[in-house]
Amino acid sequence: MPDRQLIRPKLPGGFRDFPPDDFARRQWALERAVEVYHSFGFKPLDTSSVEHFETLAGGDETSKQIYRLFNQTPDYTGESLALRFDLTVSLARMLAANRRAFTFPFKRYQIGEVWRGERQQKGRFKQFLQMDADIVGTASPAADAEIILLVDRTMKALGVEKFSIKLNNRKVLNGFIRSLGIDAEEVDAFLRILDKLDKVGWKGVQDRLAAPKSTSEEMERGAEGMGMDKSAIDRVERFINLSAGNYEKVKVLRDTLKGWETAAEGLEEIETILKLIDAAGLSPGCTLSFEPSVARGLGYYTGPVYETFIDDLPDLGSVMSGGRYDNLVERFSSEAIAATGVSLGVDRLMVGLAELGQAKTADYVSEVLVVGMGSEFQADAFRIASTLREAGVRAEVFLGDSLKLKKQMSYADRTGVKFCAIIGSEEKSHGTAQLKNMSSGVQREIALDKISAAVKGD
Amino acid sequence: MPDRQLIRPKLPGGFRDFPPDDFARRQWALERAVEVYHSFGFKPLDTSSVEHFETLAGGDETSKQIYRLFNQTPDYTGESLALRFDLTVSLARMLAANRRAFTFPFKRYQIGEVWRGERQQKGRFKQFLQMDADIVGTASPAADAEIILLVDRTMKALGVEKFSIKLNNRKVLNGFIRSLGIDAEEVDAFLRILDKLDKVGWKGVQDRLAAPKSTSEEMERGAEGMGMDKSAIDRVERFINLSAGNYEKVKVLRDTLKGWETAAEGLEEIETILKLIDAAGLSPGCTLSFEPSVARGLGYYTGPVYETFIDDLPDLGSVMSGGRYDNLVERFSSEAIAATGVSLGVDRLMVGLAELGQAKTADYVSEVLVVGMGSEFQADAFRIASTLREAGVRAEVFLGDSLKLKKQMSYADRTGVKFCAIIGSEEKSHGTAQLKNMSSGVQREIALDKISAAVKGD
Repeated sequence: MPDRQLIRPKLPGGFRDFPPDDFARRQWALERAVEVYHSFGFKPLDTSSVEHFETLAGGDETSKQIYRLFNQTPDYTGESLALRFDLTVSLARMLAANRRAFTFPFKRYQIGEVWRGERQQKGRFKQFLQMDADIVGTASPAADAEIILLVDRTMKALGVEKFSIKLNNRKVLNGFIRSLGIDAEEVDAFLRILDKLDKVGWKGVQDRLAAPKSTSEEMERGAEGMGMDKSAIDRVERFINLSAGNYEKVKVLRDTLKGWETAAEGLEEIETILKLIDAAGLSPGCTLSFEPSVARGLGYYTGPVYETFIDDLPDLGSVMSGGRYDNLVERFSSEAIAATGVSLGVDRLMVGLAELGQAKTADYVSEVLVVGMGSEFQADAFRIASTLREAGVRAEVFLGDSLKLKKQMSYADRTGVKFCAIIGSEEKSHGTAQLKNMSSGVQREIALDKISAAVKGD
Repeated sequence: MPDRQLIRPKLPGGFRDFPPDDFARRQWALERAVEVYHSFGFKPLDTSSVEHFETLAGGDETSKQIYRLFNQTPDYTGESLALRFDLTVSLARMLAANRRAFTFPFKRYQIGEVWRGERQQKGRFKQFLQMDADIVGTASPAADAEIILLVDRTMKALGVEKFSIKLNNRKVLNGFIRSLGIDAEEVDAFLRILDKLDKVGWKGVQDRLAAPKSTSEEMERGAEGMGMDKSAIDRVERFINLSAGNYEKVKVLRDTLKGWETAAEGLEEIETILKLIDAAGLSPGCTLSFEPSVARGLGYYTGPVYETFIDDLPDLGSVMSGGRYDNLVERFSSEAIAATGVSLGVDRLMVGLAELGQAKTADYVSEVLVVGMGSEFQADAFRIASTLREAGVRAEVFLGDSLKLKKQMSYADRTGVKFCAIIGSEEKSHGTAQLKNMSSGVQREIALDKISAAVKGD
C-alpha cells in the first residue's frame, strides 16, 4: 500500500520492550525467586489488570497517576475502568469478595505488570513488573519471620553474596514517638523528618527537629520543624543510634519504653521473629539487624517492617521491602484480614545484579543447528532435528530463503548455537554428520544416533 | 475508618482473576507448550502492553474495541496511549524500529495479555492471554513446515490424543477464485460465503453462490449473492470436496489450475511443506490434511494457512491457528519483512483440555507441613522446615495465630499437603518426627534426617 502514510514505529515515553536478551536475564532472576517461593509453599495466582477506578482510587496523589480506560464499543457504559497500580489492591479485592474460597493462612505470590502514569524521569517506567509474596489471615509474628527467611533465601538464590535485612516494628516506633509527647497529628511530620536520615544525616535531622513548628504553608513547601527541646532530641539520637546486638537492643528499648504498651508488644514480636529466624538460620552472607529508626512508608504498615540492601551497592536502595499491614481489606470490608508481605523490586534488582556482574541469563540458546549442505538435504535436516528434539535436545534447522553454508554458519555464530551438525552427500551415505563444536571449533564425523549424547556430554 | 464508605469488591464485567487452582491448570498447559517452543529454538520476549493509539488503530471495527488510556499527572501531554489488542502489532513495531538488532530468520514466542473492549457476551473476555510463535524474515515454506511441526508437538505434549491440522495456501485459493472469473472486488464476498461452509453446509453455500449479485445495501445486511452459473458452482463444489490424499490433491489441482501462476506457486509450497513434515514425522494422533477451502481470515494472510482441531471436540473450533503474513511491517516500513506464525488460543485450549479430562495442573502443593505440637515447638518447626527446603523439599510451617494441632491438621487437609512431620516433646528428645502420609493416613516415627528421602521416595 504505497499510498498509505507510514506510522513511526516508536513506543510512548516511559514504556519499553524486553527483547530476548533482556527477557532472558529477567527470567533467570524471576525463576530463581519462584523456586524459593515454591519451596516455602507460596502459591501463584493472577488477577485482572483492569479494575473499577473506584476500587483503586484512594483520593490521594497516586489516584492522579492511575490510567483510566475508555473505548468506543456500542455497549460502552461509561463504566469506570482503570489499570491497577500495584498487586495489593487486587489481592484485597479478591479476598474481600470471597474469603470463604481461601484456606488461611493463605500464602500467595504474584508476578504482574502494574501501571503508573508518573511524571517522566530517567530510569522510571510507567509500566513495570512487580513480584509480591504475602501471607494473609494471620497476625502471628511467625509469618513475618517466614517472609524474612524468604527474602534471605531469595537473595542467596540470586547469587548476592553480601546483603543486609533491616527489621523494625511500627509499634516500637509509634510507642517511642508517643513517649516523646508528640501529638497524633504531628507523627507523620516526625516520620518524614526521620525518613530523611540516610539523605541528610543526623545533623540534618537534628536541625529539623529543633526548628520551630511549621505552619501548614511551610509544610506544603516540605520545610518541616518539630520545635523539640534538647533532651527530647537527645532521646531521638540515642534511639536511632542504639548500637548493640539485636536481642540487646530489644532489652534496652524494653527499659527505655517501659509503660508504653504498644512498644512492648512490638518488642515482643521482634524477639519472636529473631528467635524463629535463629532457629532456621540465615545465609552466611546475610546480616539481619533490628533498626528502630526504619519507618518504611508512613500510613500503611501496622507492625514489623523490613528492607533489604545489597552491601556492595549502598546507593541502590532496598530491593525487597515489606511489612505487616493488618488493614488489607479495610476499603472493602468492616471485618479485617491481617497480612504481611514483601515486594521484590524487579527493575532495581536487575540493575543491582548487573552492577554486581551477577546478571545470569535463562538459557534458551539452541544446542544444535542441523545444517543441510543445500536444499536437497533440507528434509534430512528436518528429520535429524526432529529426532534430536525427541531426545531432549534443543535443535534447530535453518529456515532462511537461501541455504548457502556460509549463511547457515553465520546464523549459528550470531545466535550462539553450541553445535552444528552438518550433512552433505558423503555424510548422508555414511549415516553420519559432521559435528562442530562452535566454541572450540573442533569438528568430527559422528553417527547420527550419537549426536544427542555428544551434545549433552561434551 | 468506620465512617468511610465501603467499596464493593467486584471486577468489571468481562474481566477475571485466576485463583491458584485456575492459575496452576493454565500454567501446566503453558509450561508444556513452552518446553516444546524451546526445543525448536524459539526465544521468548516481552513487549510493552501500552502503545501509541496510532500504532494500533487501523481505522476498522477493531479500532473501536481498543482501550485508550488517560490520567491526570501534571505532565500529561494528551499523548494518545492505548492497550495492545494482539501481540503481532508490537512484534512488527519492534522489528520495524530496529531490524538490525535481530538475526534472521528470527524465531520468537511471546505469552502476553491483550485487551479488547468487545460487546459483552458469555464466555468472551475483555482481557485474555495470547501465546504466539512466529518465524520472521524468511519466505521459505520450510518455516511454515516448522510451525506445523511445532503445533503437532505442542498438541502431543498437552496430551491431546487425536487432533487434525488443516493446511491450505491462500495462493491456491486466490488462484482458484481468479480462475472462476471473479472480480478482485468480489473476492472477499466469495470468501465470506465459503467461510460459512462449516455452519451452513454445502447447500447453504450453493444457494448464496447462485443468488443474484448483492447490492452494497444487501451486503451491509450480510446477505450476499455471487450470481454464479451452474458450471462455476460445480467447479467450486469439486474444489472444496476434493477427496484424495494430500499429494494427490496437489496433483489434481495442478491440472485444474493449470496456467494460474499464483496457484502453481502455492501448490509448490504445499508440496514442500508436506515433504518436510513427512521427513520429520507427525505424532501418531495427528492427521494433517491439505484443505483447499480453508480461508482463515480475509485480508491478512498471504500464503500457507493452518488450523488445528481436537477430533473429539468438533464444536470447539481451532485451538492453534496461523499462517504466513508477508505484510508484517507494512504499517511502519516500505521494506517488507516476511513472516509466518501461529497463535495458541489459551482460553479455548483450557476449555478443550477440561472437556477431554486432560486439564492437568502444575504442582505447587507442599510436600511437608512441619507441625509443632504447640508454640514451644515453633522454633523447631522452623528449623526442620528450613533443613527440608535445603534438601529440595517444598516444606511449610503453620503460621496461624493459634497452633492447636487440630487447626494445623485441618490446614494440611485443606491445602492438600502430602505429608505432615509432627514434633512434640517425645519426638524432640528422640531427634525424630511423626511422619504422616496424608493420603494413606499411615504414620511412623522417623529420624529428622530421613524425612526428605522418605517424602521423595514414598
